[in-house]
Formats: sequence, C-alpha cells, structure tokens
Amino acid sequence: MSAAPVIIWVDGEQQATLPLPDRGLDYGDGLFETLLVKDGRALYLDLHMERLALGLKTLGFPHCLALVEYQISTAVAASPLAGEAIMRVTVTRGEGKRGYAPPLECLPRIIVVLSAYPERDFKSQAKPAELVLAQMRWSNQPALAGIKHLNRLEQVLASQERLRADADEAIMLDQAGNVVSVCAGNLFIITDNILYTPVLVQCGIRGTRRRLVLESLAPRLGIEARETQLSLALLRAASEVFYCNSVQGLRPVARFESSTWDNHEICKKLHQLYIEQAS
Amino acid sequence: MSAAPVIIWVDGEQQATLPLPDRGLDYGDGLFETLLVKDGRALYLDLHMERLALGLKTLGFPHCLALVEYQISTAVAASPLAGEAIMRVTVTRGEGKRGYAPPLECLPRIIVVLSAYPERDFKSQAKPAELVLAQMRWSNQPALAGIKHLNRLEQVLASQERLRADADEAIMLDQAGNVVSVCAGNLFIITDNILYTPVLVQCGIRGTRRRLVLESLAPRLGIEARETQLSLALLRAASEVFYCNSVQGLRPVARFESSTWDNHEICKKLHQLYIEQAS
Repeated sequence: MSAAPVIIWVDGEQQATLPLPDRGLDYGDGLFETLLVKDGRALYLDLHMERLALGLKTLGFPHCLALVEYQISTAVAASPLAGEAIMRVTVTRGEGKRGYAPPLECLPRIIVVLSAYPERDFKSQAKPAELVLAQMRWSNQPALAGIKHLNRLEQVLASQERLRADADEAIMLDQAGNVVSVCAGNLFIITDNILYTPVLVQCGIRGTRRRLVLESLAPRLGIEARETQLSLALLRAASEVFYCNSVQGLRPVARFESSTWDNHEICKKLHQLYIEQAS
Repeated sequence: MSAAPVIIWVDGEQQATLPLPDRGLDYGDGLFETLLVKDGRALYLDLHMERLALGLKTLGFPHCLALVEYQISTAVAASPLAGEAIMRVTVTRGEGKRGYAPPLECLPRIIVVLSAYPERDFKSQAKPAELVLAQMRWSNQPALAGIKHLNRLEQVLASQERLRADADEAIMLDQAGNVVSVCAGNLFIITDNILYTPVLVQCGIRGTRRRLVLESLAPRLGIEARETQLSLALLRAASEVFYCNSVQGLRPVARFESSTWDNHEICKKLHQLYIEQAS
C-alpha cells in the first residue's frame, strides 16, 4: 500500500510533471488500471485492456487504446525493477477548454507510474485480513458501474476510515445497504461450497482478478460461482470470506467486526491456482 | 465555455505543470471553485470560501483554507486582465503513496488557472437558453452532496450529450427521476410567484449564486423562495425557468424540449439586482 514511485512516464517521456490544464485533474475525466508486472511481463494484460476499452468507450474516446498498450509495453520493457513491480496506467481526456463539456476531438494523455512491489513475495498469500465496516457508501450509478474511472473519492474516504480503525480493509455498502466490495478489491464469500460475489450493476469496479476467479479459477477447481445481491447477514453467515485485487491476489478474511473465520481452504486453493497460472 | 488559460499558478509559482504523483489526478481527491474576477476583485469570495471550507472538512484536510485564500488574492492582484476574468482554483490532497488511502498528514496543492471572460459584457444577461434532457443522471451520495469536489464525470458526460444536441444546457435528474440541476448551474422555477429550486441533499452542487438568490436576491425583491423536490412535470408547468452559475449569472430558459417560456420577468429583476450588488 505504500512505496514511492520509481519512474513516471507522461506520454512516453520520462518526466514527473503533468502539463496543465488536464481534464483528468479538473474533472476526473479519465480512467486507470493497476497492473502487476512480473519478470518483465504485465500480468493479465488482456483483462486490463478489455476493462479499459469498455471505460474509454463509455467516456467517448476509445481511439487511444492501441497507444495505451504501446506505452505499457514500452514502460514494462524499460523497467529497472527485477521480480515484481506495480504499474499504474492513467489515461485522461487530455487538455480541454474551460468547462465540463469535453472537446469533440481530444488528445488523451497517458501517465505510467512504476512502483516497487512493496510487501512480500508475490507467491505467498497475504495474512488473513481484519475488516471493518465503512460508513462511506458507494453511490448508485449504473451508467458508470464496473469501469475504473478517476472519480474515486468514495473509496478514498472509506480508506481513510479503515486507516483510522487500523484495519486491513473496510467493507463498503451501496446506498441500499447491500455489500459491494472492500475499498481496494472485490469481495467473495463461500456458503455451502458455492462462491458468491456481489453483482456490480449499480456501482463498484469489476476487477480483473474478480473476473479471473469467476471465469477461470473457480471453474477449474469445479467450484460453482455466482454473482448475487449480497447482504451483511449473508456475509456474516459465510463459511469463508476473501477479497482480491491485482496487487495482493486473493487475500483471506479473518475477521469482520464480531464475525471471525479461521477456515480459508477454498481461498488457498484458488490462490495456489492463481499463482501457478501467473508463473 | 471556451477561452484558453492565460496564466496558471501551482502553489504560487507561475508554471503550467503539476508535479506527479498527485491525488487530485489519481482519484479526484480534491475540490475546486470557479470565481468571477471583476476589476481586480474576486466576486462573492466569502461564499466560495465557505463552500470550499465545507468541502475540505468533508475530505479531511481543512487546514489549508487560509493558504488557498492567500493564493487567490495573490493571483487576483497579479492578473493582467482588465474587466472580468474567470479564475478556477483547484485544491488537491497533494502527493501520496500508492493506493486509495490518503496520507494522515498531507501537503495540499493549490492550482490557480486564470482565463479571459469569454462571451459578453458581464452586465448583459445571456440570451434565453435552449435545454435538453440528459440521459446521464446524478448518482445519489448524501455524504458528498453540495460540495464541489473533483469527481465530476457525470456532468462531463451530460455536457457531452448537450453538445451533441447543440443545446445551451441539459437538465440532469437524480436516480429517482427528480430534477436536480443543469450540467453547470443550479435550476430555479417560478410558479404562482414563488421561486423553487431543487433541494440538494442527495446529490448536486450547492452553487454560490444559488445561495445568493435564495438568501439575498429573492428576499430583497419580496419573492418567497423554497427548496423543494422538483419533478419534470412541475418544471414543465412553471411560469418561468432560469439557471445560474458564477460565470453567466442568472440565465433565463426559453425552451426545454417541447416546453417554451417567453416570460422572464422575475429572472430579469433578480439579475438586475445581482449586477447592482456585484458592481
């Protein structure tokens, strides 16, 4: 969660400043991806690019996708970091005149930030997490649900709560009180040997590792996986709970308020398969 | 709505680049104000600073308020533009380590962008506007309603719609279908000589000029003003409609889809008083 950036590229140039004005700063008018780079390769690049493509289409400047992929590959090749590294790729609508209205033709900016992999060996699973409930909720916005745009204040403020509570993560609800996610990852529960994860049609980000669990890892282990509307009661009654993101992989949950779990069997099997696939 | 920036200051230095990383770009973790500068004075600075103070408190870095006011006054004094100018002030949480969680102690960045006043004499009222209905709606987020934070994608995409429809503005609804605002301004209707504006507790921005109309202009003209839940049917049945923002002042609405208005009497009186107050 920490680690200062090692290198920053803006539109392919190694520099640590953004030309102003930029609509990414002004309005959050852009998207991002956080990739895990391992031994000179961006893992699951196809899943990241598919989500980014959907986001660019939603925002209305899809034409820069190939250029983004080129900038990523150039940055990966130029990375001085051995082993694992974290790469954040931000794509903004670029410059624009004053006001909310976007230019009909834009010249997107691509910012690539490379950071050291902070915590531990990629292959070892992070220790079971302690969770709290965030008071800050997701707002319901079906037109933007799923994509990873730059309007992320809700997760920032929920993360501020979990920092103050000295927890590893915080459960975030939607406006109706359904469980959506943790601040920086997608949530899964296991009940009666079936895997459930919140359906993200009103809010939330459809994570690359969430997709991997649903479409690849769970099926390969013969585990049925379903998207569902998830209540706090269902979460508390689950036999296992874990969350996932591109940096931590799959991380088991040991505690959420008064609920505790010491069984992480299915999560460990899924993580093992995840590591094997990525190696 | 256009006009390229004339001068940009970042933390008091005249420069057109932002140091990276910056949480304003990464997550929209910040706030902004758009001020009208007239004859070397920022109009209604107190109203802007009060809203900004509330926003900074909500985001959790209120300590920079005095510094923001100092940067504004320095920029206003250094402005080479005679008459009217537009000043956008952006305050971000500044640098931070990777991840949503904000640093417990931050060093906010203050970006001031000065642009020429684009269109017409400040005193003349903009011509009655043609409005369409935006498909993009506001999401409901009571924890952030009212403040002017940097997460503004909904208004960007609604503005894209109104541009494509070649309209002056677009009506934006909330998720339940209530009327909230136009893309870049607050909406008022007049029915039976009473002024109504949407109550903004679930979403929307509480504009400085909205507050001025409610608390000063309407009372001085003896017009009753109320915040209300506003339906499209009430809007269509109104005897007058107008919207307001810091750049355009009060602008009458001539048309919204099939509804038309040629009576702008109360709006004109309010605008006249607004101009007198500002002079």
